Amino acid sequence: MSGRVRSPGPVRLDRLVKMRDLSRDELESLLARGQELFEGQPAQQFQGAVATVFYENSTRTRNSFQQAGRRLGLETLQVGREGSSIQKGETLEDTLHTLRALGAVIAAVRTPEPGALEELGDVGMPLVNAGDGWRQHPTQGLADLLAVRMAGREIAGARLLIVGDILHSRVARSAADGFAMLGAEIMVAGPPTLLPPGLAQALGAEEVPLEAGLGEADVVMVLRLQHERMERGYVPSLGEYRRMWGLTADRLALLRRDALLLHPGPQNRGVELDDEAIRDPRSLIHRQIACGVAVRAALMEAMLDAR
Amino acid sequence: MSGRVRSPGPVRLDRLVKMRDLSRDELESLLARGQELFEGQPAQQFQGAVATVFYENSTRTRNSFQQAGRRLGLETLQVGREGSSIQKGETLEDTLHTLRALGAVIAAVRTPEPGALEELGDVGMPLVNAGDGWRQHPTQGLADLLAVRMAGREIAGARLLIVGDILHSRVARSAADGFAMLGAEIMVAGPPTLLPPGLAQALGAEEVPLEAGLGEADVVMVLRLQHERMERGYVPSLGEYRRMWGLTADRLALLRRDALLLHPGPQNRGVELDDEAIRDPRSLIHRQIACGVAVRAALMEAMLDAR
Amino acid sequence: MSGRVRSPGPVRLDRLVKMRDLSRDELESLLARGQELFEGQPAQQFQGAVATVFYENSTRTRNSFQQAGRRLGLETLQVGREGSSIQKGETLEDTLHTLRALGAVIAAVRTPEPGALEELGDVGMPLVNAGDGWRQHPTQGLADLLAVRMAGREIAGARLLIVGDILHSRVARSAADGFAMLGAEIMVAGPPTLLPPGLAQALGAEEVPLEAGLGEADVVMVLRLQHERMERGYVPSLGEYRRMWGLTADRLALLRRDALLLHPGPQNRGVELDDEAIRDPRSLIHRQIACGVAVRAALMEAMLDAR
Repeated sequence: MSGRVRSPGPVRLDRLVKMRDLSRDELESLLARGQELFEGQPAQQFQGAVATVFYENSTRTRNSFQQAGRRLGLETLQVGREGSSIQKGETLEDTLHTLRALGAVIAAVRTPEPGALEELGDVGMPLVNAGDGWRQHPTQGLADLLAVRMAGREIAGARLLIVGDILHSRVARSAADGFAMLGAEIMVAGPPTLLPPGLAQALGAEEVPLEAGLGEADVVMVLRLQHERMERGYVPSLGEYRRMWGLTADRLALLRRDALLLHPGPQNRGVELDDEAIRDPRSLIHRQIACGVAVRAALMEAMLDAR
Repeated sequence: MSGRVRSPGPVRLDRLVKMRDLSRDELESLLARGQELFEGQPAQQFQGAVATVFYENSTRTRNSFQQAGRRLGLETLQVGREGSSIQKGETLEDTLHTLRALGAVIAAVRTPEPGALEELGDVGMPLVNAGDGWRQHPTQGLADLLAVRMAGREIAGARLLIVGDILHSRVARSAADGFAMLGAEIMVAGPPTLLPPGLAQALGAEEVPLEAGLGEADVVMVLRLQHERMERGYVPSLGEYRRMWGLTADRLALLRRDALLLHPGPQNRGVELDDEAIRDPRSLIHRQIACGVAVRAALMEAMLDAR
Repeated sequence: MSGRVRSPGPVRLDRLVKMRDLSRDELESLLARGQELFEGQPAQQFQGAVATVFYENSTRTRNSFQQAGRRLGLETLQVGREGSSIQKGETLEDTLHTLRALGAVIAAVRTPEPGALEELGDVGMPLVNAGDGWRQHPTQGLADLLAVRMAGREIAGARLLIVGDILHSRVARSAADGFAMLGAEIMVAGPPTLLPPGLAQALGAEEVPLEAGLGEADVVMVLRLQHERMERGYVPSLGEYRRMWGLTADRLALLRRDALLLHPGPQNRGVELDDEAIRDPRSLIHRQIACGVAVRAALMEAMLDAR
């Protein structure tokens, strides 16, 4: 963190719901700015607070938005499911109006309801989707892109393989969109229950056999397997999932020497990936998190600048 | 937020439990100061932390005290029901001593027990009641008064109508006291189960038919209907409550053109008031929240100044 | 808080799991520095955040680490059991890596699992045990020592009596170690179910009858009786426990006039000690809490300095 950098500020967005809300130029600009903020301090400090409204559990994403806000000089206001007015029947829109009146100037919202942010009326401040059910999680996609970019890799022409529970993954959707917008080729692999017919095409991706994809990919993104997938019968058992789809030491050996490994976290060690994968020098897993803070700061700066 | 204003500091209070703990002069002084702080920054910054001890759910009041504290330069210390020592059998008084030793210089307390703050011994710092069961919530009353005052309205001689669950409402009690102290006339309307015989008189209020009151009032305060009122048989159903007592579009048309509309939040849209009421230009509902931060900052500043 | 003091910084520790991880010199140095920070501001401010990872309830210890961090210029990042990734199956080590990537530079961890911190690999930042089940809580021991030292008492040669649930107490273990390291003599008293044969020797302590110990001790530490001890049959009832082992007004009269009284909090008034004991002028109970902030700041400063 050395030097002070000025905001370019070409993002004119008031609400980031999905990756494709960004133009290609805006996406490039956010990544460039995120890279600057990864190492330098923002020149500009803002007044007010970033509100994090999280109706689902999260350690990393909530704290990431808060840390990004602190870098911009913002205070934090936090609303969770417990202890909040949503349990008293207040709508999300009213909660956001309340937070605005309390001093919030921007809000990040995580909700189990796909599309919840698009149905909201104007709440007087910019909004960022921090995950809406299975649909989108655009700032995670931005963090993934920045991690790959900062590893010195061109995204145009690269091949991204996404492995696992494609069906329920907002991370997969946002990453597939983001990498595709910058010219990458998307491959997906996963059990048929979690990658049903037609889904690959809907994502603009090619379905590939796991081992083949692992050998070809420039970037491998392993998705988290949520435990409830087992309870609901999508996978027979965690052990069986690991055997069929996990990034074990054996499969790790299939990766190209210059491949990069991503995982959105939190990781189920010994399920979708083994300890060896997390420790592997090709893994960007911890780097992704720091990239997430930087690129969220870049996004929030641009949104606040634009007002 | 422009200019820096000096504290007048005539409030010599060490514990604000109920609205009538304030003299009329202190009340006037807090409103004047709250109005200044709504737009200007406090001249004085304090050391230490504001502790919020909330044994009941709250988004807005807890965050309001924290934001008010931040405006005075205070850090925040938060204790809730979950994850706190109260679950281990610690008394409220010991929790407050602990927070004082940890660096708190003032505390706001919400508890389900009416009168809980009056039973406490000295804890070495000023205390503010942030709601004690059905009894009092004096800073909400201050926020209501400031919102009306800042809408350019005289409170002396004004007629305030409070609608709904008067029986269980600390907000009604604090507002009735505060408006009456400044010379307003108080009217109440609600179902007999929630406005039993004798309660209006006890509040110094006149019971009126809803429609008549709506046509006469300068200020209409709609109270939140807590869902458990239905479960406990106070109201037959939410739909029935709306039909009989809700501020629907039809009833909104009865309000005077210069009337003002208050609601303490969180709102049950479609129960005690409809979307049209929240959106109505006469509504001060969002303004109340920002007034709450300003007047809480004024109160805390005065209490800290007095020590 | 006047004057600015420079860090002596002789603690070269990267992970404080138990009291005996400290050398005698390091222990002395931390107490000396804690005493300075009790009254003066640290000369040095650090960048980044202190992460508090608390998988068990705590008001005072969590807030104490956060306040200590703020004195060093640190932000705070908090992870609890609820709303955290641990519920999603993430390991503690991965959570710590995540917090590091989010900006944490030091972490305090409370977990129900004895020894949990020793099993962790390197996470790129110093770690402090904030309580691991029944085993150790070294910063509580540091706070106890500082409170006694700041009351003007020599620890070398003093006699410390620990009363109550020795069996399950991490506080007793850390205090016994710390006082013994500085030359105190340790006595213990408690019901046989909570002080089984051999435990006193294992702690390097002498088992004494309660009344005799109370009359001899320079420092009396009363332990909290956890309610679940009754449910699990360790004690017949809270009333019976008070009658046999509680520091009642009668037993308080046995203490020497210059004795000092400690309790780790939160207190069960009327169980392990009565109101009279808390109010007694010999009680350091509130002082301990403020000492805890100061000595935690001293520890964190030294650990951050050493990197």
